Amino acid sequence: MIKASIIGATGYTGQELVRILAQHSAVEIVGLGTQNYVGESFAAVYPHFRNIVNLICQDNENPRLVEQADVVFVALPHGLSVGIVEKLLKQNKKVIDLGADFRLKSPEVYKKWYKVDGPDQEQLANAVYGLPEIHREAIKKANLIANPGCYPTTAILALAPLLTDKMIETADIIIDSKSGVSGAGRSLKTGSLFAEVDSDFKAYGFPGHRHAPEIEQELSLLAGEEIEVTFTPHLVPMTRGMLSTVYTSLKKKYNNNDIIEIFQEFYRDEPFIRVLPPGTYPQTKWVSGTNFCDIGINCDQRKNKLTVISAIDNLFKGASGQAVQNMNIICGLDETAGLNKIAIYP
Amino acid sequence: MIKASIIGATGYTGQELVRILAQHSAVEIVGLGTQNYVGESFAAVYPHFRNIVNLICQDNENPRLVEQADVVFVALPHGLSVGIVEKLLKQNKKVIDLGADFRLKSPEVYKKWYKVDGPDQEQLANAVYGLPEIHREAIKKANLIANPGCYPTTAILALAPLLTDKMIETADIIIDSKSGVSGAGRSLKTGSLFAEVDSDFKAYGFPGHRHAPEIEQELSLLAGEEIEVTFTPHLVPMTRGMLSTVYTSLKKKYNNNDIIEIFQEFYRDEPFIRVLPPGTYPQTKWVSGTNFCDIGINCDQRKNKLTVISAIDNLFKGASGQAVQNMNIICGLDETAGLNKIAIYP
Amino acid sequence: MIKASIIGATGYTGQELVRILAQHSAVEIVGLGTQNYVGESFAAVYPHFRNIVNLICQDNENPRLVEQADVVFVALPHGLSVGIVEKLLKQNKKVIDLGADFRLKSPEVYKKWYKVDGPDQEQLANAVYGLPEIHREAIKKANLIANPGCYPTTAILALAPLLTDKMIETADIIIDSKSGVSGAGRSLKTGSLFAEVDSDFKAYGFPGHRHAPEIEQELSLLAGEEIEVTFTPHLVPMTRGMLSTVYTSLKKKYNNNDIIEIFQEFYRDEPFIRVLPPGTYPQTKWVSGTNFCDIGINCDQRKNKLTVISAIDNLFKGASGQAVQNMNIICGLDETAGLNKIAIYP
Amino acid sequence: MIKASIIGATGYTGQELVRILAQHSAVEIVGLGTQNYVGESFAAVYPHFRNIVNLICQDNENPRLVEQADVVFVALPHGLSVGIVEKLLKQNKKVIDLGADFRLKSPEVYKKWYKVDGPDQEQLANAVYGLPEIHREAIKKANLIANPGCYPTTAILALAPLLTDKMIETADIIIDSKSGVSGAGRSLKTGSLFAEVDSDFKAYGFPGHRHAPEIEQELSLLAGEEIEVTFTPHLVPMTRGMLSTVYTSLKKKYNNNDIIEIFQEFYRDEPFIRVLPPGTYPQTKWVSGTNFCDIGINCDQRKNKLTVISAIDNLFKGASGQAVQNMNIICGLDETAGLNKIAIYP
Repeated sequence: MIKASIIGATGYTGQELVRILAQHSAVEIVGLGTQNYVGESFAAVYPHFRNIVNLICQDNENPRLVEQADVVFVALPHGLSVGIVEKLLKQNKKVIDLGADFRLKSPEVYKKWYKVDGPDQEQLANAVYGLPEIHREAIKKANLIANPGCYPTTAILALAPLLTDKMIETADIIIDSKSGVSGAGRSLKTGSLFAEVDSDFKAYGFPGHRHAPEIEQELSLLAGEEIEVTFTPHLVPMTRGMLSTVYTSLKKKYNNNDIIEIFQEFYRDEPFIRVLPPGTYPQTKWVSGTNFCDIGINCDQRKNKLTVISAIDNLFKGASGQAVQNMNIICGLDETAGLNKIAIYP
Repeated sequence: MIKASIIGATGYTGQELVRILAQHSAVEIVGLGTQNYVGESFAAVYPHFRNIVNLICQDNENPRLVEQADVVFVALPHGLSVGIVEKLLKQNKKVIDLGADFRLKSPEVYKKWYKVDGPDQEQLANAVYGLPEIHREAIKKANLIANPGCYPTTAILALAPLLTDKMIETADIIIDSKSGVSGAGRSLKTGSLFAEVDSDFKAYGFPGHRHAPEIEQELSLLAGEEIEVTFTPHLVPMTRGMLSTVYTSLKKKYNNNDIIEIFQEFYRDEPFIRVLPPGTYPQTKWVSGTNFCDIGINCDQRKNKLTVISAIDNLFKGASGQAVQNMNIICGLDETAGLNKIAIYP
Repeated sequence: MIKASIIGATGYTGQELVRILAQHSAVEIVGLGTQNYVGESFAAVYPHFRNIVNLICQDNENPRLVEQADVVFVALPHGLSVGIVEKLLKQNKKVIDLGADFRLKSPEVYKKWYKVDGPDQEQLANAVYGLPEIHREAIKKANLIANPGCYPTTAILALAPLLTDKMIETADIIIDSKSGVSGAGRSLKTGSLFAEVDSDFKAYGFPGHRHAPEIEQELSLLAGEEIEVTFTPHLVPMTRGMLSTVYTSLKKKYNNNDIIEIFQEFYRDEPFIRVLPPGTYPQTKWVSGTNFCDIGINCDQRKNKLTVISAIDNLFKGASGQAVQNMNIICGLDETAGLNKIAIYP
Repeated sequence: MIKASIIGATGYTGQELVRILAQHSAVEIVGLGTQNYVGESFAAVYPHFRNIVNLICQDNENPRLVEQADVVFVALPHGLSVGIVEKLLKQNKKVIDLGADFRLKSPEVYKKWYKVDGPDQEQLANAVYGLPEIHREAIKKANLIANPGCYPTTAILALAPLLTDKMIETADIIIDSKSGVSGAGRSLKTGSLFAEVDSDFKAYGFPGHRHAPEIEQELSLLAGEEIEVTFTPHLVPMTRGMLSTVYTSLKKKYNNNDIIEIFQEFYRDEPFIRVLPPGTYPQTKWVSGTNFCDIGINCDQRKNKLTVISAIDNLFKGASGQAVQNMNIICGLDETAGLNKIAIYP
């Protein structure tokens, strides 16, 4: 039985971790940390856990929170993880950080986008970018996982086969992404109010969203060259779900079936990637509450333009589900343990 | 041309007033007050006014805000209006207060529910409860209008014909109300976040909502006896709209058509009340963006039980539209001026 | 391993059954029936089952659909089950009918509300009304379960302790219910279109909804006297969820805690009933995707009026989850098997 | 007073026309046509018109429907307008066709995309594509207006300044569009059900949407060369609103302010185009219920890539409002008459 603690358990990704782990047959949750609800019953903060999770929230800094834990999930806003993670690693805990602090390999790039100092090169050396479909072997050996952002997860999975096989013009990559609101978390912002989001659609995050450098870092690694993308996030009036429509140019002629086969081959052994058949395109509802990334493909032979559409649940494969997938890998469990969910429909 | 200023113009009811008045051919807006956006262009705060309203927001306390005004609308949270209103009345302004401070005739009841001191008896003496369908004659002579709350508007209009004609058991009145989220305003609360409200339905405000004493005061006046009601507000995952389902017992046998005729007669000359024909029941969308209150009736002869359903737009007939209706009356304009709107559908 | 077939698997309650059973460790799905999608892969009809359910839809009438089955779920519109169920019982299948046909004990009442002939007295004699919290012992011995409607489930569970203990005035019961749209199923109606439902709230089903006689039958049984209720269903702009606000009068004085204790005692051993503590009231999201019924209580001592609020997921505890709970009971499995779900939040 | 009739008044765009015209001070509605509601009161079909519009629906084919009309709006599904329009023109009516039949200049292209025969070259010769910002002079002289589609309206307005000034690489135009559901009309389709659309986001219309040739025709005209675009429509879980994110490559270096100034200059005298200042990007709610097209610009100098975002209300500027704008022009009225609306917010 793996013992797991969660630092920052009362945010949206934190409580999603609790939900997944509470139903994971090989895991016992031993500590739930919080900033705002210290001493309260977790089921009072989130009453859908009543009669199911009986733990009391502890202070995120309380050492007893992690004392018994084999694995610690850290679900904090950016800029808060570095010191905590260092301490945990010294205690020989396995750490999965759901925040942004350890994702970027360059401290300079981190500082440019996040406006604060992140970890230094030495601290970063321990971290593995936790996208299992791309970095599984490295993840297996890691003690510190930098769990990917939701936008990068959709973008990288949509482009990985094409970049690996050098099929596309890398100067011409456009990622038009659409996200549900839960990605903004539970913090209080006017822009997250129901009355502002309902019946509205907008782009946001110009001139650059913080997930852009993360996307570019990973695509560049896959391509073996520096890649800069055009990336526009949009806000959809729904709670969960993320869909990216990725446009690029093919170096040579392919038809739709060729591309689909290349994707199916690339992801052949991946339990959570579903490459859809010709004529089927993903809907966020099909993956809601699951760890799936569904991918649909449309190749416009007339213009040699390729459109790849990928959809995930931003809180699941885009955050907490992927974190548990990483936990399964680093703990030697079946990678799909606790993650065999079917989307609730309608 | 009536000159109007709005204190508290940057809240939801404030900006709704701006919208209605900007399209009102007999009104010129001369001042927009704010607490948080002093010095900003109103159209920058609410960009849907771009190219239409060109005023700069002034401090709510700035005397120049109201200097030119004939009428001043006060749209502030409860507890903040008393001093401001007193000053305005001394300047011979007509005042329409959209907050709760002048609605309750009893300072003790006010303090019990709002936990702060409200206006005293002398200050209250000037105020008329601004539900034109009930108090039109008093409104005509008033300089200070206490604009009704949204829940009371639905409840009183659903019950007025029955209480006036003493048709029902006054001990048995249940008001089951459902409101869109915009009634909670633009202030930041976890319970107003999109991710919390979307796909959810709940009752709230137990054991008693602040609109209960307002409802009871006005129903008691209509009935000529003390009335206590059972009142449960609920939150609907939509932005605008309010519907109350009112249950009561008839003193003697009526059939459905009798009751509908009594309602139609009672509201015969009311431009904003639509009593629906047998078999038709209101939908909030039919009144969205309008000053209408739609009323549907179902009489269960088997049990002598009557169900009356009333629907309004909580920000329009439930707040800013009713305020303009009151302004029209006290300024001697056609009561419907600027209010002849048709709901946007779908 | 229990073998289960579903007749009518491609409606909303049908596919919800598939989802629950596909994750139920003691069940194997052996047949999926349909009217409209014969010969199609179930995962093509509902792509969220891709890679999970690999069955082909068969004609609802195809005998091979149920050949191997120990248990057959029938999820058909009313009026279609009687002949099918009779045949299945002769084949010694256990049958759980999710439709309305076997719920009412009186053929006359059935015909009055459903306008067609239902089963006769002899056929009805086999059927047990499948609300386990009330009829568990009878269910254990049954071969034919009439699975309750969603509205009745909320109403009966909210009132059972009060009627059993004869605490309330049975002439004074008002059930104000609010439902998500999925209850209307996947059939094509103007009133179910997104553009009609979104941002709208309305009552419907006047002068009487078909669930009223079902509610009255079961409440009368509990009370030992004939009960007539006032019942108003409303439509909420959300997909899943149902909440009933039930108003009644107490025969003698109680305070809030008394009533809560009586409810907690009544439902002490029930795995799926959560009686909420004082001051907490149910939200449909807390039970979404689960078999829970959450119940909150407010006692107005001033007027001896009691408000009980119950919330369920209309497709889960209100249909398919309850059907699986019944299956567990009649098959001798742990009653909670396959049903230990946590609501997805937010 | 202009007399207007509407053929197809009971669809969503039809009733939106009724709403706008009923509030237009220079117009009298003299006939409302329908296919499904002949003989019914229009206010019974759409009860939000109760007490406002008192006409009875007539058969779309009834000659008396248009007898008195100066202008006839035709709001029918594609393929049904040609004969009707020909007859109306012979009766010397001015005709505004909101359908697709007269938009494409090439009968072959029409047939390829719509699978039926459209008007022939002679019939097409009379029609002017009714986008006033581009074709105002031709519209003034026309008797037959082909009112643009909603997607083309957003795409053309976002690209017109750039193509006119030959600033962009015409081979590299990507139009990623997002639409509310009302664009699909009131016809019954599974994909338009609330339970299917709510909480979901998807692309649709692959491999080519019927609006693509319309976009390409108009962009080619503006550019003076054949243009092929990449166009992906998506469905947003909201009723109204459309936003297009248009990506293209600049031929030479510009900064953001340059581009904004070019757009502001191009649309200087346009009453319904609002080019937003730097750092502000459109939201569909800002234009909901209005005839505005709001445009925001982001120029990525690093890569010489330009992102233009345009937003409209699909039923207003994307259909019925634009139709009234065209009517105003061909009837010699002030172009903005009846169209000075402010978006309802929130």
